[in-house]
Formats: sequence, C-alpha cells, structure tokens
Amino acid sequence: MVTSFDPRTGKPTEDVGPDTSADDLALLCLRAADLAVELEEIGRHGRAAMLRAMADALEADRELLIEAADRETALGPARLGGELTRTTFQLRFFADVIEDGGYLEATIDHAGDTAMGPRPDLRKLLRPIGLVAVFGASNFPFAFSVPGGDTASALAAGCPVVIKGHEAHPRTSQLCAVALRRGAAAAQVSADVVSLVLGRDAGTALVLDPSIRAVGFTGSLGGGRALHSLASSRPSPIPFYGELGALNPLVVCPSAAENRSAEIATALANSFTLGVGQFCTKPGLAFVPAGSYGDALVATLTEAVNAKSASVLLNARVQHGFADGTAALLKSPGVTQLARAAAPDTQEGWWGTPLLLEVSPTALEGAVLDECFGPVLVVVRYGTGDELLALLQEVGPALTATIHADDADRPLAQRLLAALSARVGRVVWNAYPTGVAVAWAMHHGGPYPATTDALHTSVGASSIRRWLRPVAYQDVPQELLPAELIDVPVDSQRVPRRVDGRLDT
Amino acid sequence: MVTSFDPRTGKPTEDVGPDTSADDLALLCLRAADLAVELEEIGRHGRAAMLRAMADALEADRELLIEAADRETALGPARLGGELTRTTFQLRFFADVIEDGGYLEATIDHAGDTAMGPRPDLRKLLRPIGLVAVFGASNFPFAFSVPGGDTASALAAGCPVVIKGHEAHPRTSQLCAVALRRGAAAAQVSADVVSLVLGRDAGTALVLDPSIRAVGFTGSLGGGRALHSLASSRPSPIPFYGELGALNPLVVCPSAAENRSAEIATALANSFTLGVGQFCTKPGLAFVPAGSYGDALVATLTEAVNAKSASVLLNARVQHGFADGTAALLKSPGVTQLARAAAPDTQEGWWGTPLLLEVSPTALEGAVLDECFGPVLVVVRYGTGDELLALLQEVGPALTATIHADDADRPLAQRLLAALSARVGRVVWNAYPTGVAVAWAMHHGGPYPATTDALHTSVGASSIRRWLRPVAYQDVPQELLPAELIDVPVDSQRVPRRVDGRLDT
Repeated sequence: MVTSFDPRTGKPTEDVGPDTSADDLALLCLRAADLAVELEEIGRHGRAAMLRAMADALEADRELLIEAADRETALGPARLGGELTRTTFQLRFFADVIEDGGYLEATIDHAGDTAMGPRPDLRKLLRPIGLVAVFGASNFPFAFSVPGGDTASALAAGCPVVIKGHEAHPRTSQLCAVALRRGAAAAQVSADVVSLVLGRDAGTALVLDPSIRAVGFTGSLGGGRALHSLASSRPSPIPFYGELGALNPLVVCPSAAENRSAEIATALANSFTLGVGQFCTKPGLAFVPAGSYGDALVATLTEAVNAKSASVLLNARVQHGFADGTAALLKSPGVTQLARAAAPDTQEGWWGTPLLLEVSPTALEGAVLDECFGPVLVVVRYGTGDELLALLQEVGPALTATIHADDADRPLAQRLLAALSARVGRVVWNAYPTGVAVAWAMHHGGPYPATTDALHTSVGASSIRRWLRPVAYQDVPQELLPAELIDVPVDSQRVPRRVDGRLDT
Repeated sequence: MVTSFDPRTGKPTEDVGPDTSADDLALLCLRAADLAVELEEIGRHGRAAMLRAMADALEADRELLIEAADRETALGPARLGGELTRTTFQLRFFADVIEDGGYLEATIDHAGDTAMGPRPDLRKLLRPIGLVAVFGASNFPFAFSVPGGDTASALAAGCPVVIKGHEAHPRTSQLCAVALRRGAAAAQVSADVVSLVLGRDAGTALVLDPSIRAVGFTGSLGGGRALHSLASSRPSPIPFYGELGALNPLVVCPSAAENRSAEIATALANSFTLGVGQFCTKPGLAFVPAGSYGDALVATLTEAVNAKSASVLLNARVQHGFADGTAALLKSPGVTQLARAAAPDTQEGWWGTPLLLEVSPTALEGAVLDECFGPVLVVVRYGTGDELLALLQEVGPALTATIHADDADRPLAQRLLAALSARVGRVVWNAYPTGVAVAWAMHHGGPYPATTDALHTSVGASSIRRWLRPVAYQDVPQELLPAELIDVPVDSQRVPRRVDGRLDT
C-alpha cells in the first residue's frame, strides 16, 4: 500500500492506493505503447492542442493540487503556486516549440552529383522514439514530477508516458495524472497517453519493461545510478537521462566582495536555503577571498544564517540524508561551523536547520566535495587568483557554476569562466543558480555526476531531443513522405529546414 | 606484437609494432586530453583548415595507403580507391559543416518578462565534450577506421581522438595516422590531436581511461555490447556510440516483381555480395511474392548467385563467423539452399562463397533473424499483403529497410513504409541499401541492435552531435561570451542562431 505522509508531523495521513503490480504494469505499458501511433498521427498541431488542454486542466484543479502538494511536501502554498504556474507555462511552451517545428531538424538533400559520385534524394527528420518512462522527483511535485518537464517534452515529441510517482507525494501525483488525462480527453486524445504507477518495485519493472524506449529521471545519485545500470543491462539497452544533482560552486571575486559584500551575503543565504535547500542547483560551496572584504562578507553571511529558521524537509529520507551529510561534514578535517539557525521548538516532523560551515583550503577533499541535499553551505577562503583556480580544479562537474565579478575582477573572471564552463552546464554571472528558466536557451545538465548524459538537457526547448530519433528517407515518393519533408509543404506543415546544405526558415 | 596478415594466403606478412602498453596508453591519453583546449581555441575556421590539410595529406599518400590496405584486407584497389575518395570527401565535408556553424545550435534569449516572471539573459551553444576514443572497423579500413567518420566528426567538433586500430589492418592504420598527424602539423596544430593505439588490451584500457569522454565504435554486436557495458560501468559513465550492424530487410512488392523481376534480381545479387557481403547495410532478408513473377525473380537471383565467384574475406574471424553463421542457417528448420557460387580452387586464404537460401514463412525465427556477416541472403516468399506485414513484425530493428514498389503497389507500399520506418534508421525506395552517402540528410543508425544509441548517427553532418554538449551562459557580459553568441558577431563568427525564439540564418 502506498501511503501519504505529512512532513510537518512525520505521520501517515492516508492510504493512496496499492503498489502497482507487475501484471498491471506490463498491461499498462503494452496499452500505452500502442498509442504511440495515435500521438504521431495527430501531428504537431494535434499534440500542441493536447498540451494546452492539459495545462488548462491543471489550472482548473489549482486549489486542489496545491492543497494536496502542500500537505505532502510542506513546501508552502506560495512556492507551490509558483511551481504550478511554471508547470502549465512549460506545457504551453512545448506546444509552441512543436508548432515552430525546428526541433524536427528536417533536412533535404536533392539527388545530385558529388565528388563521391551520384547521390540519391535523401530526406531526414526526427521521429518519436516510443513509450517513455518518467520518474518524478521529490522536491518538485509539479515541475519535475507527473506533469513536469520530462512528461511535457515527451508528449510534445509524440511519445506516450508511463510515470512512476514519487513516494513523497503519491496523492499529488494521482491528482496530477487525473488532470493530464482529462486534458488529453478534452483534446480528443486517448487518456492512456499518460499513465501513473506507484511503488518502488514498479519503478524497477518500468525500466525493464520491453515496451519502454527511454527513461527520464530526476533524483539522487544513488537511485539514478542504479536505474541507469538497469537500463544498460536490458536485452535491448535504452537511453537513461538522469539528472542527479550537483555541488554547485559559487565564486566571489575580490572586487565584488569589496563592493557588494552585504548584498551578496544576504542573497547567498537566501539562495542556499530556498526551498529548504532542496534544489539540485543549490550553491553548495562558496569561494570567498581572504582579507577584510571577504571577512565582512562571511560575517554578514553568518548573521543571516543565524537569523534563519528551521524548516520542514520533504520526507524522512531527505531528513536522514541531511543529518548524515551534515554530520560527515562536521567531522571532516579542516571544517568548522560558522552558523546554525535555531532548532525547531518541536520534536514532531522532519526538520532541517540551515547550517553554514567553513573548510580550510588545504582540506578541500572528501565529504566537502559531495553534494549534501538540504540547507547547508560550505565556505572556502582563497588567497590569490592562481590559488583559487587550483582549488576549483578539485571540484567535480556540476549543473551550474556562479561567478560574482565586478569590472576590476575582469582578468581573473575571464580565467574563471574558461575553467568553470569546461565542467558545468550553466555559468551564472552576478546572480544565483537556484532559478532555472523554461526557455529556448536554457541548459540544465552537465558532465557526470550532474547528469548521466552530458549531451542532453532536462529543461528548456531542446529537452525534447531526448525522445526523438532520426529517420532518413531515400528516394521515397513525395506523396509518401512525412508532410514536413515534401518539396512544397502546405502552410501548416512548413517548418525550418536545411535544404541542400542551406538553412531555410 | 601486432602482426599484419594477408587474407589471400592467411599468412602473416609483417610485424607492425608492439601492443600499446597500459602505461603508454595512459600517458598518451593525458597528453591528448590537454590538447582539447588548443582545438577549441583555434576555432571553427582553424579546425576546418586542419581537416582539409588532413585530406590533402591522405591524398598525397594515396598509392601507399591503397597498397597497404589491399594487402591487409584484399578488398581490391578499385573499391579501396573509392573508399579513400569518400574518406577525404568526408573530412572536407566536415570542414564545411563547422564553417556553416549551424551545428552549434547557438541560441539567445534576451532578458525579459515572461508568464513565469522576469527571465535573465540566457545564451547557449554546443561545445566539445573532450577526448574521444574511436574504434576502427575491419570492413572499411579508411571510411570507418583511423581517418573515418568518427575521427573526422570528433576533430571537427573540437575533440582530440585516440584511435584503436583494427587488428585486420594495423599497417594501414599506422600509415593513416601518420598522414593525419602530418596534416595537423601542416595546419599548425599539434600532431597529438590524433593518436593510434594497437592491441586488444589497449582497446579495453582506452574505454576505461579517465580522460576519455565518449566512444565511437563500428563493429560486431558482441564486441560492441561488451565495450558498451564497460563504458557504463566506469566510475564516471560515458556515452558509447556503437554501430553494430543489422539484418536489413528488403521487400519486393507484387507489381515491382511483375515489372522488374530480372533487374531487381541482378541488382540484389550484386548488393548482397558487394565487398564480399561485408557491409553493415547488406540486405540480409528478402521478401518476394509467391506466384509466377516472384518465381521468375528467385530463378534469376539463383542463376546470378550461381554465376558469382568466391572472394577473399577480411580476416580469420570474419571467415569463422561466416562459416558458423551459414552452417547455423543451413541447419535451421524450414531453410533450403537455392544457390551457392563455385568454391575457390585453392585451400589457401580466407574465402567466402556467396550463398542464397530460402526460408519458409512459417519458420521465420531463430538464426534466420540474426545478421550473418558475409555474402549470404535469405529469401522469404509471402502471400497477401497482410501476411507480409505480419512477417515483418518478426524482424528486429535495423539500420535500413528497402521497399521495391511500383505504382500499382502503392496501397501496400504505404503500409510497409509506416511499419518499416518505425523500426529502422533509413528507408530505401526502389534502390539498394549498401551505399551510405555522406550528406546533410543521411542517417546511419537505428534502434538497438542496429546502434547502441538510436538517437545519433555515425554518418552525415549530424554525426558531429555525438561529441558536443550544451553550455548555457546566464547574464555573462558580451566581451566574455563565445564569439558566436555576442549580439553582433564579426562576419567570420556569424552562424545560424535562434534569437528570442526565432531562427535567424
């Protein structure tokens, strides 16, 4: 039985439903896989209408969804309201992306002579890969869960989805699935293009199901790595796109510390405690210059953290991870505690208390280089620019890196940008990494362990590329080609194409 | 010691050099990985000049290369000359691809308000992934080996390469590496952007080397699957792009059989024996209608195969594989022999004799559905169109599928196109799959086991995508951005971009 818990009390609140059985899962995957044909046949415009209807259905249930999600995650109605807005925005954004059609990478080479001899007529576009498995995350019950980016991009591509709802919010997952299915039906599409399964065993069975063609996952390094191995071990291996989190370094250059120490300290304290530090883009390691300006920054940061309150974490697992992680940090050589917010005045519930640590630059190894999910930040003080760059070489790949630099910092900042952009997916300048905009130019990914596949993003327009595979048509008659590949398509099927080597918008 | 063999005699001809030791390989990878910075800094135009200089260097050694390759592969000077032309064309093609710059997927979203609130300035492009390992294939000593598509596309992307030369042609591999390195030097680039290693152990060590960021492989299912598992098991898993071959189905529709039986039969006999059947795109299973037109086609095909000669295969392993594979086919239930070319008049050397088999449609399972590398084709006779479509459901994914259809076949052909394009990478119409043009619209890949990664191609312009990862820049000042991402780039850095959601060529 899958049970819903209240993180504010740590107690079960309701039984949501049985774990999905192996038989039910197999049947459901077979049925969903069959709908790939329908989703492709209704075309980009049909799917765009479906995505917009799904956004409408979620909006219609806004109150119900936020109430359930707050009860299950304790993230609060304000944050959850913003997250739901982001989620429906994202569904509508993908409707725009597929109506644009550039994502198809439509390419035409007319027959002709080449230096290699005559070439046949070749036309290519991207087509949906088939049934996709989506694993919802604990920390974003909407934006990275049932109605989140993986689901939106897979449906946009033309792939039905089977979603493994996260144990931390099963009721929210169920309500979201109901809304998405209602949206599909409202757009005259089979509701079964979206299915939900619950329970840990169902997750394993899902990755191994022969109908599944690819997996999208947002979660922990351990869970992601295990499912990744499972996906590779199948008789037919499938791509596994895991976003596994990161220790996101943030660097304050000397002049920025001199000019903006209070502002940076306050904003940094807010960034690493945002959502109780439960963001994969949380800055985890801050490099601050030695000397008086850096001292001032650290002093303000210390005050800000001492003034924070404890907040409720998502679930028992996150709480244990945070407790174990901070204990390991505090025991690490060269680590000292700078600040800790006041403990909660109750024993009930799964609390996390913001914590600020410092590590000696000579002790930058071991636990301080691992991500610790929750409201903790480690500060490192550096001397020269060369020392800073050498320290950064110790830090592994990440989703983001942040540079705070003013004009006088330019020569150092340039070296930092080169070093950091070589190992992270997004470089943030004079801001904070915790916001991830849904946009054409967003990249949310990075070399392992940030993501299992450094080549693809899980946020933004190009996240649709994960669910598509190229198909080439050689000498196929015009009447039988996909509508976007014929020489003169009807208006609704005109998309950006590369024709005989030249882009044609 | 790595030894060169002559397939025409089966005897060793010369010792080429020692197996690369583990220590040498580790040092060589470290040195090569350091050159990633140089390759990215010389920019797209610098790399284009390097690729063209490499093509020139190969052309300068044409005679020497073809002589060595013919001695090691027995493919003959005419085929090898064409393959070398294709290879230098491919290097120049990638120079054009990177000068065009569309492959960067440059994207700019200016700061602005959205339904989600204010959005920062975001800019994204693709950057080289780092050091790439390339595994050369036995059957294409140039086009899919040391100077082949994986090497050309990785260098174009800005990735240094370490190449595992194939045991079947170590001297050719060495000579090609020398030419590529000379080409690099001629373009003022460090020669070590291309390195060669030899020996089976070196191949394993290469996939596990911590500096390697991705692997390109063309070869057998068994070898590819083992290396794929190795790549996934690393402490930091890396993408493995394996092109593992396929049983490429070919369908002759009733009217095509009626109108063109002799022409199709002759061309099909030539296609499956081309290069002694040692093509991953070799048609392996031909569906021919029952009835008199199909009978005529099969009769002509039988005559054509009986009239073929035995030819020399690439190496002992291919010969054993072909012998074992054809033995398994001949023992399979429902399989009968239609034709076999005359055996060679010598016991010396590694010969393969063209073989034509037929399998009963009720026995379409087991060995007849596995690829058998070498000059063998299995014919299946079908009755109705529905029966044909049901039979095709038994055939696994493949690199290609071929449809021969005339106007009267249109309704059936349309159903075939839908069924086959759903499971292969390229559909060929009224032609043969054995040629793979280097072009913008080519796709050479397919669902597993055709390739380990159905999303990417190993031939054509977009094969460069395998070696690139996105990097996003948030609010980074103009002067520090990559040249292609600033608002108004200089002419040489103008590339197709998507700006605020609109493509701008």
